[in-house]
Amino acid sequence: MLSLQSYKGTRDIYPEDMRLRNYIFGKWRKVIESFGYEEYDAPLLEPIEIYAAKSGTEIVNDQTYTFTDRGDRTVAIRPEMTPSVSRMVAARRQEMPMPARLYSISNFMRYERPQKGREREFWQLNFDLFGVDGIAADAEIITIADKILREFGANESMFTIRINDRRLTNYIMREYLGLDENQTNLMIKLFDRREKMPEKDFLEQAAEIVQNESKNDTTNVTTLLIKVRQITEMRDLDELVQNVTTNVTKNETICDLKNLFEILKNRGIKSAKFDPTLMRGFDYYTGTVFEVFDESPENRRGMFGGGRYDGLIGLFGVEPLPVVGVAPGETTMIEFLKAHNLLPELKPSTKIVVIPMGEVDAGSVADELRVRNINVSVDFSDRKTDKKIKGAVKSGVQYALFVGEDEIANKKFSLKNVATGEQQILTIDKIAQIL
Amino acid sequence: MLSLQSYKGTRDIYPEDMRLRNYIFGKWRKVIESFGYEEYDAPLLEPIEIYAAKSGTEIVNDQTYTFTDRGDRTVAIRPEMTPSVSRMVAARRQEMPMPARLYSISNFMRYERPQKGREREFWQLNFDLFGVDGIAADAEIITIADKILREFGANESMFTIRINDRRLTNYIMREYLGLDENQTNLMIKLFDRREKMPEKDFLEQAAEIVQNESKNDTTNVTTLLIKVRQITEMRDLDELVQNVTTNVTKNETICDLKNLFEILKNRGIKSAKFDPTLMRGFDYYTGTVFEVFDESPENRRGMFGGGRYDGLIGLFGVEPLPVVGVAPGETTMIEFLKAHNLLPELKPSTKIVVIPMGEVDAGSVADELRVRNINVSVDFSDRKTDKKIKGAVKSGVQYALFVGEDEIANKKFSLKNVATGEQQILTIDKIAQIL
Repeated sequence: MLSLQSYKGTRDIYPEDMRLRNYIFGKWRKVIESFGYEEYDAPLLEPIEIYAAKSGTEIVNDQTYTFTDRGDRTVAIRPEMTPSVSRMVAARRQEMPMPARLYSISNFMRYERPQKGREREFWQLNFDLFGVDGIAADAEIITIADKILREFGANESMFTIRINDRRLTNYIMREYLGLDENQTNLMIKLFDRREKMPEKDFLEQAAEIVQNESKNDTTNVTTLLIKVRQITEMRDLDELVQNVTTNVTKNETICDLKNLFEILKNRGIKSAKFDPTLMRGFDYYTGTVFEVFDESPENRRGMFGGGRYDGLIGLFGVEPLPVVGVAPGETTMIEFLKAHNLLPELKPSTKIVVIPMGEVDAGSVADELRVRNINVSVDFSDRKTDKKIKGAVKSGVQYALFVGEDEIANKKFSLKNVATGEQQILTIDKIAQIL
Repeated sequence: MLSLQSYKGTRDIYPEDMRLRNYIFGKWRKVIESFGYEEYDAPLLEPIEIYAAKSGTEIVNDQTYTFTDRGDRTVAIRPEMTPSVSRMVAARRQEMPMPARLYSISNFMRYERPQKGREREFWQLNFDLFGVDGIAADAEIITIADKILREFGANESMFTIRINDRRLTNYIMREYLGLDENQTNLMIKLFDRREKMPEKDFLEQAAEIVQNESKNDTTNVTTLLIKVRQITEMRDLDELVQNVTTNVTKNETICDLKNLFEILKNRGIKSAKFDPTLMRGFDYYTGTVFEVFDESPENRRGMFGGGRYDGLIGLFGVEPLPVVGVAPGETTMIEFLKAHNLLPELKPSTKIVVIPMGEVDAGSVADELRVRNINVSVDFSDRKTDKKIKGAVKSGVQYALFVGEDEIANKKFSLKNVATGEQQILTIDKIAQIL
């Protein structure tokens, strides 16, 4: 006997779930298209090399669905969109008008341990702005991220957009803390996990990283740990500038960050906060990185993030191109709406069910409503009328229409509001008006 | 260096292709929802058993993308939707209100030789009516198939819906031709390929099938071949009844087929034609089968098909349930629209590009248009103005708006129709009116 279960980590999306998905996708589309983004789609499978190049080793080694096809090609089900859209833009590097604004809403797969807000198959909106290296591009992407959450009714008490810059991180790790490349990578990964561990553990592990190199003596380690701790506590760009950077006026990264916050302030974005501890997993980021954080006490977590990845398109052998992008996901969005009580009540698109009484041409009556743009189903089953009405109630359809020989002859039909029980005898035109 | 090519048999869907896809999906949705169908989705991966059970051996052995996941489960990327939706309905066999009308628009993969109108990754609309065993259900599904093509502007000279019944096929093969089970299966497959070969080859191969059994003498073979040829030429149900069936009044299949054509006639469906040679590949059909045929001289081919598969849901260990369904595909739909000159001209959703003149807050001006429900992009690039206008023309956006310091101070902006070159100085409200 075949199993009734869906494959582990995936969900069967029944109509009530699909209504929520379509509600979310609809809001996404509305906001992103209002900023001039045009929709695209990419293949479900890509050669594995495209991910190996830049996605980060954890994703490629542990999380991709990789296999060999019948033609002996090693392929992966896409675990993310960025490498695919980079390939597509690279393939039209010469002819595509710049700046290019592209978005997609697609499914992805990662072999992860399924948990709340994380599934093996998941849907994401991806939007990217190509061809602008100025900070105005970063500001636009962050503005849209903010607008998307507001479109669902969220306000700035519900979420924060944490912002950092990879160039600043590199400066802090290499120049300010004096770490080598290996220590830098380890420290970035440690910062990434920081909120999931007690501060004591974090500092112990930080000490391990800096001690690993023999050149560091005990005094040095203590000094470094004080600095590390200091960075984790900073949420003010000016404070960081005073303490960390030696030559502020010449530091392009600091200028960009200041400009970015200035633009966001002028656009009325109150959710943006500087956070020098924000790292983001992917290896391909080269400038601004940011993460939208759910601030509800019971659901505090990073929801989605993005940033600037100017180097990726050049890997396809074409002239490099500046890009900023971000990818909100469906499941985290649902968790956010739930946590903040923003889930709407969603009705079926079917407005009325026609119930034939005897051997009549009920389909033609239904057609008369359809030409008036009303979504109608016909209950052709041979159950009793009260069972048919119960079925309508259960499926959430609000009206039932009874169609017998007399009704067809008189061109008047009995319309029942199945929720209230109210019943009226009306012409098709009147019925169409009520619906 | 990474390849710019998409994976073999898949397409990169750039915005102009995506507009066509969204146009097709939009029409599909409109028609199918008007008949009371509610959208669902199923997982991308399923355990291989679900297909092995009923999809037909060719699909499972030769065409599925099958692999073993990191947890040692053998899974397949879905090659079709029917087994998944059957599983989903079976899982809610008790509580789902019947009749249930369900549709999905999803991507699938089959390892086939890519050719015109056939790709390894493809998108299909699947719609199924569950819980009605009467022929009214079959009529509804065929009616919707007809309405879908009409929604794109097609008329009955452009397509035919060929209709047959598996029960009639079984009767013809077993009772009328006297074939055994093996011969029946071979003959069904031969009929399926009939239009792709000369009649001479068809009859030779038919002779081979009936000769294979020693019980058939030469006279018998000749008689059988005459009968086979006769069937391939019949397009009239009454004629078939006179020649083939011995006891018409008791034959339920013939009654159902007559009723079906009667209902379709009453609903104004002129594209429906009886065709006793129509077979359809899948093993799971149990009653009506049908196929929508493109009648354009340069593109004559089956576009999509469906039928009744009452046995499939019972394989999941629940009480069986009658079902009729069909699945039109995106690529064949595009080929059909091309062949009949029905492709529309589709514009980008972006209506206007804002071109900043100097260091101004162009984003805020764009926001003023956005609150008036206009899709606006801003050209933040540092190219010259004429290059920016050329970019707008190339991307198909119709208007450009020039925003400098003076314009912001005076609250009047220069609007250019980039197609005609016409230029006017207007307030935001006036601009919103024009767009």
